[in-house]
Amino acid sequence: MSARIVATTTDSAAASAESADPCCAAPLPVLGRDVTVPLVTGGEVTYAALDYAASAPALQRVWDDVAAYAPYYGSVHRGAGYLSQLSTDLFENSRVTVAEFLGCREDDQVVFTRSTTDSLNLLAAALPADCQVFVFETEHHASLLPWRDARVTYLNAPRTPDQAVATLERALADRDPYGPALVCVTGASNVTGELWPVKELAAAAHAHGARIVLDAAQLAPHHPVSISELDVDWVAFSGHKLYAPFGSGVLAGRSDWLRAAEPYLAGGGASRKVARRSDGGVDVEWHDTAARHEAGSPNVIGVYSIASACKALTEAGFDELVARERHLIAKVREGLADVPAVKVLSLFGDDAPRVGVISFVVEGWNSSHFAAALSAEYGIGVRDGLFCAHPLVRTLLGSDPQTQGECGAPEAAPGEKSLNAIRVSFGAGTPDEHVERFVRAVKELVADGARWNYRTEDGRCVPDTTAA
Amino acid sequence: MSARIVATTTDSAAASAESADPCCAAPLPVLGRDVTVPLVTGGEVTYAALDYAASAPALQRVWDDVAAYAPYYGSVHRGAGYLSQLSTDLFENSRVTVAEFLGCREDDQVVFTRSTTDSLNLLAAALPADCQVFVFETEHHASLLPWRDARVTYLNAPRTPDQAVATLERALADRDPYGPALVCVTGASNVTGELWPVKELAAAAHAHGARIVLDAAQLAPHHPVSISELDVDWVAFSGHKLYAPFGSGVLAGRSDWLRAAEPYLAGGGASRKVARRSDGGVDVEWHDTAARHEAGSPNVIGVYSIASACKALTEAGFDELVARERHLIAKVREGLADVPAVKVLSLFGDDAPRVGVISFVVEGWNSSHFAAALSAEYGIGVRDGLFCAHPLVRTLLGSDPQTQGECGAPEAAPGEKSLNAIRVSFGAGTPDEHVERFVRAVKELVADGARWNYRTEDGRCVPDTTAA
Repeated sequence: MSARIVATTTDSAAASAESADPCCAAPLPVLGRDVTVPLVTGGEVTYAALDYAASAPALQRVWDDVAAYAPYYGSVHRGAGYLSQLSTDLFENSRVTVAEFLGCREDDQVVFTRSTTDSLNLLAAALPADCQVFVFETEHHASLLPWRDARVTYLNAPRTPDQAVATLERALADRDPYGPALVCVTGASNVTGELWPVKELAAAAHAHGARIVLDAAQLAPHHPVSISELDVDWVAFSGHKLYAPFGSGVLAGRSDWLRAAEPYLAGGGASRKVARRSDGGVDVEWHDTAARHEAGSPNVIGVYSIASACKALTEAGFDELVARERHLIAKVREGLADVPAVKVLSLFGDDAPRVGVISFVVEGWNSSHFAAALSAEYGIGVRDGLFCAHPLVRTLLGSDPQTQGECGAPEAAPGEKSLNAIRVSFGAGTPDEHVERFVRAVKELVADGARWNYRTEDGRCVPDTTAA
Repeated sequence: MSARIVATTTDSAAASAESADPCCAAPLPVLGRDVTVPLVTGGEVTYAALDYAASAPALQRVWDDVAAYAPYYGSVHRGAGYLSQLSTDLFENSRVTVAEFLGCREDDQVVFTRSTTDSLNLLAAALPADCQVFVFETEHHASLLPWRDARVTYLNAPRTPDQAVATLERALADRDPYGPALVCVTGASNVTGELWPVKELAAAAHAHGARIVLDAAQLAPHHPVSISELDVDWVAFSGHKLYAPFGSGVLAGRSDWLRAAEPYLAGGGASRKVARRSDGGVDVEWHDTAARHEAGSPNVIGVYSIASACKALTEAGFDELVARERHLIAKVREGLADVPAVKVLSLFGDDAPRVGVISFVVEGWNSSHFAAALSAEYGIGVRDGLFCAHPLVRTLLGSDPQTQGECGAPEAAPGEKSLNAIRVSFGAGTPDEHVERFVRAVKELVADGARWNYRTEDGRCVPDTTAA
């Protein structure tokens, strides 16, 4: 690692402190807030992590909790030792904390998984026979693809929230045969950041005898999510987007389908009793609690880190967090609106409520090139590409999207359609200075071009240091 | 958490330093080595973690590596920012480190999973059509149960390593039809600690046109494991038993079956290209590298912690680690041999090579009661039960095993068969004092009985503090 931690405040951070809007609370402390990275143009700068929608940094509080627990780590559920019992309590209390965070109903189960992707694959494996699945083409691949054994109806991208509800209602009413059905919908788009009308979609689903699972991967870090208030059947989210990047995720909700399904993984922990039969085979009696789908030694640290994040966000207060994020969103959107070459991607229009996830293209620029320049010349980490939501990005760009353009090739001519996009995303740990630097960088790059040459290496767009 | 860290050396630890055999290297520093726990009989004592076979404490070196990296954490593979690229390099370099640790062949793939259980479920999902599976009934449930879609032949427990090979050869030769087959075998038993003749079983498998996967969950922390030298097709192991308890595991080996299989999870990361078809469906092009089976954001910290542990064990030297462990095994076995009421469980007999995993029963004692007394009166963490290997424990005990006895009920009469067992296990972080204290505790409990009353509460055997 060539980057290094510095304890002193850099000039840009000091500027941030001055320019912070006094209306808003301070960002929550996160790991890496003092990390500096080298610029290709010389010098170092504090890293501006603006890729929260992919993975957020750990909250300092989460890290501190993990570090305090780590010496007490022990196996859970069956160990007789003090640390095993302490760890078991911590693990099962984490389940309670997550249930409270999500406003779970009494009969809901909280199953710990490795990620949102894993949670939705688990639910897909637990569908009743002949279940039909309804999913908008606008979903992240994690919500779009897991339903491999079901009959899936892909719904076209709606252009308003009302249209989303109407589209779903029509599809559910028309389904044939009128049997079990599941709707899978995102709470906040991982591309546009726009909020989806979850409560209305849930009502539509239930009115037509269907169930609904909320992909809250992008919603839960930014907004309170209540299963019971939204009246959804399940919620899935990931620790690593919720400031707890220790490899765990959650599927919470109705227990009946989960209890009736075959165990997700077969192994210890999920099995209550295993015995050879007289014919040489093996009889297995499975648990019918959450353990049924949690075979193998649980990721205790990952689970505890999620519970810690739930507590930290609740204590910080979502009203404060939402207010501060609105302030950052306004800064970015107003800044980008000043640059005619920038086109922000949107399904629902400028006035749609949204979280801090904004994707855009820059006329005349290959997105990979632009993102590489933001990193190498400004120390800003964003993302370029298709964001694991290919059909949505295709709809938004009106082009056949490509995973990555050749950043060393001639840039797209003005008027030519972009092949992929740039995404900037932020959250509870983001200081004003990061988004201010981002807006300044976009303006400078568009006005003056990159100050360095770039080339493609191993599929990445990188500064060409060989030609220097 | 009522336990607390103390920086000073306790009396018992000082005693250990004196009694350590000068022939052996010092234990590797692990987290929790200074944690003290309360005794029900009064006072505190450093915790003796003797449940390594369930989960080992993190190596201090692993924790230090994780703590140093954590501020630099970023999403891998698609982020344009400096920390994303640093994290991607760290993640993919970890794959190389693990491949080296396992002596992988050039064409082998290293897939990161969440655990051994997960690794074997992944392999089970990747079996070719009509594959037959052969597995000894002596396996851990993680190796015994995942083969749900295959025709499984359960082989009876052998009583010698040679008998294991002969049993397998006969079963493979007799299979009908003579098509694709997979053998799954443990490297070291999680109940008896005994080593299995992996190389000979691999030769037998290959001689009969079968493949073999090694469950190295209990072997890799104690012995060098080389895929190429053992000539096995796959190896599975878990980070949490390898001093890296951050939620990751490994499946490494032949890439052909893995490349041909459907992706284990469906989602982002595993998909190269996703597009709507003109008929409204969706076409997916999947990766054919390890990413094919790693959908979702990878557990970067978990993966890096495994690589760190692989490096730490390699640098410490397995010759040294094995020598030290042999010394500890001898202390425990010789100590237990002094107590006629103790019966050590064994398949292959006293002279079989083994790792530091020893299970036993105590005549006249319910195992849960005995384990609870070791914890409450001596600060020793062991495990009681059936160790997720019910058929094996049934064979070893000669009784119908029960997950847990009622510790408050009258103890089993002398001569009555035990319903479950006690397991003591240790490894690279274990000081002599821990096993010495364990042997002393066993002798005292057998000679004098427990000094406290115990009762069953929520399925756990705990000291009865209400009656005090």
